[in-house]
Amino acid sequence: MAIEGLLIDLDGVLYVGDKETPGAASMLEAIRERDIPFRFVSNTTRKSRRTISRKLQDMGFPVEAAEIFTPAVAAISWLETQGSPRVHLLTTGDVDQEFLDAGISPVDHDVEQVVVGDAGGNFSYIRMNQAFRFVMDGAGIIALEKDRYWMAPDGLALSAGPFVNALEYATRKSALVVGKPAPEFFRLALEALGLPAGNVAMIGDDIDTDIGGALSCGMQAILVRTGKFRPGVTSASPVTPTEIIDNFAQLERML
Amino acid sequence: MAIEGLLIDLDGVLYVGDKETPGAASMLEAIRERDIPFRFVSNTTRKSRRTISRKLQDMGFPVEAAEIFTPAVAAISWLETQGSPRVHLLTTGDVDQEFLDAGISPVDHDVEQVVVGDAGGNFSYIRMNQAFRFVMDGAGIIALEKDRYWMAPDGLALSAGPFVNALEYATRKSALVVGKPAPEFFRLALEALGLPAGNVAMIGDDIDTDIGGALSCGMQAILVRTGKFRPGVTSASPVTPTEIIDNFAQLERML
Repeated sequence: MAIEGLLIDLDGVLYVGDKETPGAASMLEAIRERDIPFRFVSNTTRKSRRTISRKLQDMGFPVEAAEIFTPAVAAISWLETQGSPRVHLLTTGDVDQEFLDAGISPVDHDVEQVVVGDAGGNFSYIRMNQAFRFVMDGAGIIALEKDRYWMAPDGLALSAGPFVNALEYATRKSALVVGKPAPEFFRLALEALGLPAGNVAMIGDDIDTDIGGALSCGMQAILVRTGKFRPGVTSASPVTPTEIIDNFAQLERML
Repeated sequence: MAIEGLLIDLDGVLYVGDKETPGAASMLEAIRERDIPFRFVSNTTRKSRRTISRKLQDMGFPVEAAEIFTPAVAAISWLETQGSPRVHLLTTGDVDQEFLDAGISPVDHDVEQVVVGDAGGNFSYIRMNQAFRFVMDGAGIIALEKDRYWMAPDGLALSAGPFVNALEYATRKSALVVGKPAPEFFRLALEALGLPAGNVAMIGDDIDTDIGGALSCGMQAILVRTGKFRPGVTSASPVTPTEIIDNFAQLERML
């Protein structure tokens, strides 16, 4: 099927560490020249799009904040469809800025939705208990992601998932997960693109969250052999990408 | 069936708040006079038996530490059957004293079992992450309890359960739960009594953790109408106590 739009993972696709993958910037330019609608999709829950865009610009990628889609943006789109309920944030970094930019001022009382991201050191007992009480008083739980852990510079570190799970267990409620690989994430990203799933390809380096998530939403899914890709990952997984390419620049031959 | 031994819940049975239930001290004396083997069973994970015993003595109950059975004591019995592995504690209060009294010195490296109690403010991100890394490096998880929450003086407060669940989710391992209503708790308490389940009665005020837990281990189970008992609790629950009595002192007519 023809590719009319793209969702492009950032880390591991456009760059690895702080280094552009071979030919990535030119490829991005080619996509722009052909007027192919796209969004960069990142699962980061600690940074606002403005911060991500500045980082990309520093690496030589001219990317606007509006071209980036994150779990916080997905949460905001969803909240807007719900009549903009009162939101409490259990997050860290400057992701609160994303909400403020969208006209949502986080609150600490009469909370209707508790938004949980990878809050790191903000996952104190007091903050967890505060969120717990809001949910027991009727608030819903929105999980920006539900990953188990990530590799921090000094070793494995707990992601948001375990703490989301703790709140779910304590309150007997289920969180709405809006980060990859949740269907809600891809649905809202496609809505932002304004294209049907079948005509859009997701390009990513993670066989599960990127490829599996996109395929189960009816999208095409292209795996790159950069970033966290390892030989054997496709034979070890039940997920079969639509296509596998060496790197983002090789997308050229598919457009 | 005859009652040859007793497991007696403390809070809500022997006393409510800081007040003895009517005739409780005399009833305890009568049990001693008849040489009926018993243990007080408490689900507290924040206090050592010595502290509990001091509190009971202050309230007018002459109870020795050795007559009390808690999840920490259950954990210690279990650890002893496993060749006394190296233990890391994620707890608060003086429950660490229970382990020290048993000759177990908690460690922070080469950990083989992580013991999780209701650690309250000790559930910091750093402490959670430390426990998580121990488990990822091969340690098991022992949960002193897996309750969802409790009623603190200033409102609902998260118990150990949500944090145990967070560790389980992060590591994809299951905790061994050694607090009520886990079968392991009752099994180890019966072992301490040296009596078969059918000949022992549990006396408690909680239809689920006390009564349901004891019945599913083959014990007799007597519900008291003190403490957290509320009218209607038995009709709302699938659990049917062996007997219901007004208070601990009424046990007299059953012995």
